[in-house]
Amino acid sequence: MTIPLKSWPEAAPRLVAVAAGREAADLVIRDVRLVNVHSREVLDWQVAVAEGRVASIGPDASHCIGPDTRVIEGGGRYLIPGLCDAHMHIESGMLTPAEFAAAVIPHGTTSMFTDPHEIANVLGLAGVRMMHDEALMQPVNIFTQMPSCAPSAPGLETTGFTIGAEDVAEAMSWPGIIGLGEMMNFPGVINGDAQMLAEIAATMRAGKTVGGHYASPDKGIAFSTYAAGGPADDHEGTEEADALARVRNGMRSMMRLGSAWYDVESQITAVTERGLDPRNFILCTDDCHSGTLVNDGHMNRVVRHAIACGCDPLVALQMATINTASHFGLERELGSIAPGRRADMILTSDLVSLPIEHVIARGETVAMDGRITVDCPHYAWPDTARQTVHLGKVLAAVDFAVPAPEGANAVTAKVIGVVENQAPTKALTAELPVVDGVVEGDGGVCQIALVERHRATGGVMNGFVSGFGYTGRMAMASTVAHDSHHMIVVGTDREMMAQAANRLGDVGGGITVWKDGEEIALVELPIAGLMSDRPAIEVAAAAQRMVEAMAKCGCTLNNAYMQHSLLALVVIPELRISDLGLVDVTKFELTELIEGRGKRLP
Amino acid sequence: MTIPLKSWPEAAPRLVAVAAGREAADLVIRDVRLVNVHSREVLDWQVAVAEGRVASIGPDASHCIGPDTRVIEGGGRYLIPGLCDAHMHIESGMLTPAEFAAAVIPHGTTSMFTDPHEIANVLGLAGVRMMHDEALMQPVNIFTQMPSCAPSAPGLETTGFTIGAEDVAEAMSWPGIIGLGEMMNFPGVINGDAQMLAEIAATMRAGKTVGGHYASPDKGIAFSTYAAGGPADDHEGTEEADALARVRNGMRSMMRLGSAWYDVESQITAVTERGLDPRNFILCTDDCHSGTLVNDGHMNRVVRHAIACGCDPLVALQMATINTASHFGLERELGSIAPGRRADMILTSDLVSLPIEHVIARGETVAMDGRITVDCPHYAWPDTARQTVHLGKVLAAVDFAVPAPEGANAVTAKVIGVVENQAPTKALTAELPVVDGVVEGDGGVCQIALVERHRATGGVMNGFVSGFGYTGRMAMASTVAHDSHHMIVVGTDREMMAQAANRLGDVGGGITVWKDGEEIALVELPIAGLMSDRPAIEVAAAAQRMVEAMAKCGCTLNNAYMQHSLLALVVIPELRISDLGLVDVTKFELTELIEGRGKRLP
Repeated sequence: MTIPLKSWPEAAPRLVAVAAGREAADLVIRDVRLVNVHSREVLDWQVAVAEGRVASIGPDASHCIGPDTRVIEGGGRYLIPGLCDAHMHIESGMLTPAEFAAAVIPHGTTSMFTDPHEIANVLGLAGVRMMHDEALMQPVNIFTQMPSCAPSAPGLETTGFTIGAEDVAEAMSWPGIIGLGEMMNFPGVINGDAQMLAEIAATMRAGKTVGGHYASPDKGIAFSTYAAGGPADDHEGTEEADALARVRNGMRSMMRLGSAWYDVESQITAVTERGLDPRNFILCTDDCHSGTLVNDGHMNRVVRHAIACGCDPLVALQMATINTASHFGLERELGSIAPGRRADMILTSDLVSLPIEHVIARGETVAMDGRITVDCPHYAWPDTARQTVHLGKVLAAVDFAVPAPEGANAVTAKVIGVVENQAPTKALTAELPVVDGVVEGDGGVCQIALVERHRATGGVMNGFVSGFGYTGRMAMASTVAHDSHHMIVVGTDREMMAQAANRLGDVGGGITVWKDGEEIALVELPIAGLMSDRPAIEVAAAAQRMVEAMAKCGCTLNNAYMQHSLLALVVIPELRISDLGLVDVTKFELTELIEGRGKRLP
Repeated sequence: MTIPLKSWPEAAPRLVAVAAGREAADLVIRDVRLVNVHSREVLDWQVAVAEGRVASIGPDASHCIGPDTRVIEGGGRYLIPGLCDAHMHIESGMLTPAEFAAAVIPHGTTSMFTDPHEIANVLGLAGVRMMHDEALMQPVNIFTQMPSCAPSAPGLETTGFTIGAEDVAEAMSWPGIIGLGEMMNFPGVINGDAQMLAEIAATMRAGKTVGGHYASPDKGIAFSTYAAGGPADDHEGTEEADALARVRNGMRSMMRLGSAWYDVESQITAVTERGLDPRNFILCTDDCHSGTLVNDGHMNRVVRHAIACGCDPLVALQMATINTASHFGLERELGSIAPGRRADMILTSDLVSLPIEHVIARGETVAMDGRITVDCPHYAWPDTARQTVHLGKVLAAVDFAVPAPEGANAVTAKVIGVVENQAPTKALTAELPVVDGVVEGDGGVCQIALVERHRATGGVMNGFVSGFGYTGRMAMASTVAHDSHHMIVVGTDREMMAQAANRLGDVGGGITVWKDGEEIALVELPIAGLMSDRPAIEVAAAAQRMVEAMAKCGCTLNNAYMQHSLLALVVIPELRISDLGLVDVTKFELTELIEGRGKRLP
């Protein structure tokens, strides 16, 4: 059931009548300590709700209660605004918007600002629209940031679709678009790239917010120049000085705590120790795996963490409510408990440990004690979104063979070196043996292949990777393959690599792990090869089995699946693989896999 | 000369090139202590400007300097953002927008949010458009709030024109309209008046800010109900509890220091003593006479005063810069010194006494040491705006005669009792003598007349007023007559009342004071009968002569001209006069002047 919501001006006649006591409220909440994020106070006030919006707040709402008014007695607990996630990618949870919403509502998240960057690479503007439409069907607020950079690295990869300035301009008129998604092409902005500036201009002209992504430690001229280009926020900061640079330059510092991002503790000192005005600091997750959502929480986890880092609880709550709303021009629509705003609220017994006991969205109870109590409707995903793994042929072991220079019995090959707990890779080289004219992995080096899956070209780009620790005969394939989301196959055995790839072709995408000729784990992600429409708890369990299967194959790394899925991310140094070949990301150019004949004696 | 200004997206290619050092800046300011209102810090930073906007800020702007770059050496002074007046009426200065701008620019005001409510009553939407158009010609930022309430009191007065919801909707598309002007009809909003809610809805749908005006001490249900109707700010608060109520209800508290408003000291304790988050507190003037502008200052006076009231100087500056900009959705356009924003800045030697030494707007020097250095262009006001005093006939003494009931030699009459330094009047009664069938003033009671001047009806509505202290034979007339701006004539002599009224008909409006058959002061206000297009210093001098002339006529009141001009303000209790008759503002109804025959013996 979707809860229809009138705009404030549409609802105003009723809100005024309820506030005045001429008509009865739909809901009154009393015996609560209301956290007012405008004044930054806790007040013994009551709340009257009508039309899914707050009609009035004040010391006494008795005059708003009629025979049909639902009354919630708070038992002296705190009533806080629903939490906002200022920047995030739903696809990172491997869940559809509906199932993501269902997973985070019990954690008190009632507003999300999502950038469907991954599906944009697979399905283009049409895919963004599908995400946008499912988002608008939910009982909580999911706003869409129009992806800005597909491909992320033009000329170095081929995406399923591309996004241009005209797509951005078109999307700005959609009802759920709140701004431009993170402008990752920061070198482009700095260099005055016409397309990037045109996308920003289309967003600004629509009066919407330009999301930033400045992933460089240089806080000097390069950063100032990026700020001059128009991005209004940035979530890539990792140290206090990054936060300072953002805020001083009139941007908002988004500090993230995701499944693998830990950037709050190192930056929040700008407020807690340096005493900067906190209004320009915002909390977000960026990326959360379904396991995190099931086991640890969502924005409640981030707020708790900020408080644990020494932030005043009321300030931390502002960073996840009104600060976010203000940033996106929604200050009078959500992010606080005040007249006219969407009635998104949480009852909690404690402002530090922040138990999420009762969640109300648009005036309806949506979760109680960790359990969702509302439906999150599914979009009717069309076949174009469910059938996105186009291999063009049945792959065979030979497709994964790397031919050696004629007559060589060994070669010097480039190897992508995975580094534990880091997104950057190392550009390594290794001496690899040649058997029957084919280069073989050896001594910790196994094979990697980028399998084209958008246009059924049958293309397979092969290379070598080290660091996973795989032993024995195994293969692992994934259609989550940032950012262009072809298919990444890693393995020690070419036959099994072919089996794994074909398997994902059969099931429509996901992640599969093979050992000794058998599939030992499968995560089905039929929607765009990125998302499941099953509940988070099922997806988290499947993902957990997948991680365990990787360990059975000898993998010793923490977060190894993330490493796997990022091996094609050709914007982060040093060495990556794309459908066009091996990419030297220190130079932003394609490079040769085989450097020369090896020195191995026959 | 108007300074053309490109939008940020239009200017972005150049801003980026300048920030990067690839092109030279138009202006660099260095050796300054930059007040950063985002972080609330003072930084030893430099500023590069191009296209009238800030291209970059940072520790060193050397790379932005080319052979044609103008360099300002700040000599270690503070560089603060240009000041913003969040709510004001230009007409209160009796000056056109151009001359008002010329008067306040040397005081450091670079952005104004003006509600041309007075001209709306005289000339309707067309008059608003003229003000709006002259505003956009200025070298500083003058945004127009579309007047919401003309007439202020429907049924109790006749304005020159009326404003309806369709006018509001039309104006929302004009380039300089920033929102809806103060919604004075707060009883209408509270009672769900369809027109008021429609005006608010048209503003909200346009994504603009609804100005509030809640002039009641009741902070209970009535105020909550008003907040539910949609107004986003209020400047009518007079005590700390008013400020608290506004901010807690998700509105912004605008604290004013005008020529006759002193509402900062009593409210700013919400921040300085209670420690509320200051972001929702804003400074404004509401109404400033030209004398104040010439002698005392404008927003610099307000900021200084806030600091003198104990506010931290950086917080006080935020209240007159970024807080205002954020409120109107202009946070990325002005109100701070940061990349992309309009280059509106002030050099000052001291953050407490706040001398305004050098004012820069859109990157150009507009004032130095109190002298304006730029032209403020005049709009070509048409005859319809210059000929607005339509009396319909030459008035004579007999038009001001109040006939007594037949045979009475005395009457009991209602008398408007002026109270020193207060806007409200008292509803008094007096026993007045009758001479030749006409009621005469007596014992401190003199005559007042409301002369119709919009439609040439020849209508004169007579009454009595006390409290000015006038003695001898005198009369004073003004076409500034809030809010419908007919003509108010007060006098002890009917012949001279007619002369004064006819004089304003001849000169096209203004204020004239007569004594013993001679005009002893005249302020010509030819534009709409409200404004002069002469410089503020001339208007202030004329106004000063007018005040002195009132004293010569025996007036003993402080601010007596304001009292005079408010006698027709039929929304403030208790007794007023309009073109429709005497108005009992405690009941919002017309009332009889003569209560009955008097008791005076023959």
